Amino acid sequence: MSEFVHVAVDAMGGDNAPAEIVKGVVNALNGCPNLKVTLTGKEDLVRAELSGQQYPADQLEILNCTEVVEMGEHPVNAIRTKKDSSMVRGLRLVREGVCDAFVTAGNSGAVLAGGQLIVLKLKGIERAPLAPILPTAKGPVLLIDCGANMDARPSWLVQFAQMGSIYMRNMTGIENPRVGLINVGTEDDKGSALTLEVNKLLKECPGINYVGNIETRDLPEGVVDVAVTDAFTGNAVLKMYEGVAKVILHELKEVLLSTVAGKIGALLIKPSLRGMLKKFDASEYGGAPLLGLRGLVVKAHGNSKAAEIQHALEQCITFKEKKINDILYTEMKLEEAAANRVKNRDKNKDNADRNNGTEKGE
Amino acid sequence: MSEFVHVAVDAMGGDNAPAEIVKGVVNALNGCPNLKVTLTGKEDLVRAELSGQQYPADQLEILNCTEVVEMGEHPVNAIRTKKDSSMVRGLRLVREGVCDAFVTAGNSGAVLAGGQLIVLKLKGIERAPLAPILPTAKGPVLLIDCGANMDARPSWLVQFAQMGSIYMRNMTGIENPRVGLINVGTEDDKGSALTLEVNKLLKECPGINYVGNIETRDLPEGVVDVAVTDAFTGNAVLKMYEGVAKVILHELKEVLLSTVAGKIGALLIKPSLRGMLKKFDASEYGGAPLLGLRGLVVKAHGNSKAAEIQHALEQCITFKEKKINDILYTEMKLEEAAANRVKNRDKNKDNADRNNGTEKGE
Repeated sequence: MSEFVHVAVDAMGGDNAPAEIVKGVVNALNGCPNLKVTLTGKEDLVRAELSGQQYPADQLEILNCTEVVEMGEHPVNAIRTKKDSSMVRGLRLVREGVCDAFVTAGNSGAVLAGGQLIVLKLKGIERAPLAPILPTAKGPVLLIDCGANMDARPSWLVQFAQMGSIYMRNMTGIENPRVGLINVGTEDDKGSALTLEVNKLLKECPGINYVGNIETRDLPEGVVDVAVTDAFTGNAVLKMYEGVAKVILHELKEVLLSTVAGKIGALLIKPSLRGMLKKFDASEYGGAPLLGLRGLVVKAHGNSKAAEIQHALEQCITFKEKKINDILYTEMKLEEAAANRVKNRDKNKDNADRNNGTEKGE
Repeated sequence: MSEFVHVAVDAMGGDNAPAEIVKGVVNALNGCPNLKVTLTGKEDLVRAELSGQQYPADQLEILNCTEVVEMGEHPVNAIRTKKDSSMVRGLRLVREGVCDAFVTAGNSGAVLAGGQLIVLKLKGIERAPLAPILPTAKGPVLLIDCGANMDARPSWLVQFAQMGSIYMRNMTGIENPRVGLINVGTEDDKGSALTLEVNKLLKECPGINYVGNIETRDLPEGVVDVAVTDAFTGNAVLKMYEGVAKVILHELKEVLLSTVAGKIGALLIKPSLRGMLKKFDASEYGGAPLLGLRGLVVKAHGNSKAAEIQHALEQCITFKEKKINDILYTEMKLEEAAANRVKNRDKNKDNADRNNGTEKGE
């Protein structure tokens, strides 16, 4: 049997915790003989959900935590002060090397902060991006970054393109993922200072299949496999996707149920409609990975049901079995990148010292 | 009878030019006794479309132009070199004060460049924003800016908020338009360097009903009347809106027509569906205004039909009758703003001179 993959799961995170989280874990354990799970959270509540369930008991542990990071809490404060929360304890298990990955449906901001502050970035990685999957007419697109990294620098986006490409190649089996840069037009002379520079850098970046600038209008049609952007834009695009889809489907429902003909029509189209909605259902891809950390952190939707948690656990298994962090390390030459960063920092420090000296001397 | 409103219309711009453009102009002329139109474009083609049509002939002129700015052309180059194009001549009519407004369905980039380069900005306006209407479940939202103003400064967005608010109040009759700032979260401590600063400034900005940060997820539900953002984000959000709506409706159609039950259902729901699609049809609001210029420039969709052109002309009439530019001038204290800008420029120049002097002296 292959090596165990050990995943910490936040039993208290999300709208349906702990019931759906525990159910998802049980289902995953019953399907994956090499999975080990540590559920972090209030032990009595977790035990209540587990009672009567069938699962390989030696593959499941519970780590009792007295605190919970609530959905509305200030992310960084929560991470700093709630040391005994299910989220902080779960992230620490990854940092300490006890677990390979951490899955949570809890407070997004806290996961993003905690990922970089507790699990820590891989040496040489400048920022850890959050990369949700957008389901499209032609399959999944990885939207990288939608995280907390405001005011991006060009070099961050180049690393996002590399990480996204490696992730999609290994996780979904797309051989040569098409990487595009979200911009205001497809031409090379279009864009902000950031995208003009990144477009140039990505053209020269080895190891990725860069297809150039793309417009968000073409994203839902699946023109690329990896859509690179800064976290601010990614956030706006992702939430617009959710918002438009929600409103259109809601209006459609209202309008159908407002007339008798519509009601009959609705009954007739229900099975077809369900098929279509399934195509646009992101939950089968698991959650959004926070990449570039020493272990995998997966952010599942706040309203996750058991199926999404189960898929997130399967995602953690694939991530470890495919050795994605080893591949990032080698292909992105992270050792070298880290050394360069230290060199640049020292150079900048020298310059700063010199400038300070001059100023003081005046 | 009230004063005439004189509008230049680009007969050659857009996918359906000149036929639909001319038809839209004829319909508008037949409904608006105080409208005067100058159609810019190839006179023989325009005359061919006009032949057999009924309209008040003394309210229509044709200005023959030998060139056309094509859809794929480089915007700034086109504006600079095609002096006898229907677009450049139309914009010049506004600059020269012959016309009050210019309507085109042509090359977006060229309109944006031409608006600022040819028509020129109002004194005191820092950048002219393009502000399309997004139809939502609860009425129209003005998305300002979606134009060509990359790498925005905080002060630009404050002016966008003011312009957008004045525009919506006067054009749609919403008494106290709710103004929101697109951001990654609603809390005051969320955002990029730009949005953190703009959120602070908007809270102190007199004359607008600022409701704070908003997330794009809530935009399609109509939580605000004016959504302020930088042009890069606005562009990504607008095109995502179009892309998602297009793909969902396309998939819906495919799925309905793939089964017999679906086909029958589709026939039954067709009338209801049409009502819903009408609700989300932006064309009844006319085109996107380019605000803050010495006259109004309206960018209609590239695929505009006669109805959108007609509505764009009605939009120009309202804009002039409501004296929106006079209101901008007074409420935004543009005289003062222009004077401050000159003062700041001089101060910056003095500082630069002083710094240069120091450097040279070392």
